Amino acid sequence: MADPRDTGLTLDPKYDANGLLTAVVTDAASGGLLMVAHMNAEAFAATQATGEAHFWSRSRGRLWKKGETSGHVLRVTEMRIDCDQDALWLICEPAGPVCHTGATSCFYRRVEGDRLAPAA
Amino acid sequence: MADPRDTGLTLDPKYDANGLLTAVVTDAASGGLLMVAHMNAEAFAATQATGEAHFWSRSRGRLWKKGETSGHVLRVTEMRIDCDQDALWLICEPAGPVCHTGATSCFYRRVEGDRLAPAA
Repeated sequence: MADPRDTGLTLDPKYDANGLLTAVVTDAASGGLLMVAHMNAEAFAATQATGEAHFWSRSRGRLWKKGETSGHVLRVTEMRIDCDQDALWLICEPAGPVCHTGATSCFYRRVEGDRLAPAA
Repeated sequence: MADPRDTGLTLDPKYDANGLLTAVVTDAASGGLLMVAHMNAEAFAATQATGEAHFWSRSRGRLWKKGETSGHVLRVTEMRIDCDQDALWLICEPAGPVCHTGATSCFYRRVEGDRLAPAA
């Protein structure tokens, strides 16, 4: 029952079949959810080495430093991992809007049945 | 450039190759990240119909109502979707600890280099 990965203090990321972890980014100031992306081992290592969030872009098939073109980097103030070590929580200070639409957060719409509404 | 999925007000979930969305759960009271899981269309529909979080268990290969055995259900107070509609944000009132380890949140360990430390 007691899997050491779930309860121990050794970092042992559980990458999925595509070699990825889920990475959740929240705003260190507001606490709000900013974005969800994925990291492979290289992106994870680059994030740890630089203190700035790096991801694996599934659509482009390459390492991606968030803000590499926009300048809107994410400075990581704390990183946590979940019980089964397949998801990371990055608490970040964003240098600008996180979403490619220009919104502060990618989660700028509320689900209302089969419609969406601008979030407050 | 302007994909209607990214900017419009029509719900159009983008399920992955396994028919899943990423679902991120935060605590309505504290704002903290509680857990990350996955939803297929059935779990999404059940969550909308009942107001309680349902997921697709990848390990067990079945629909899973959070708290079905522990009683620690997640009452959804608000649901948001991200720009490309492949991730959901569920703001919830948890009926008890969320993690199977008994912790309030699955993210109870901080990453410190190649070690983990109990989060504050």
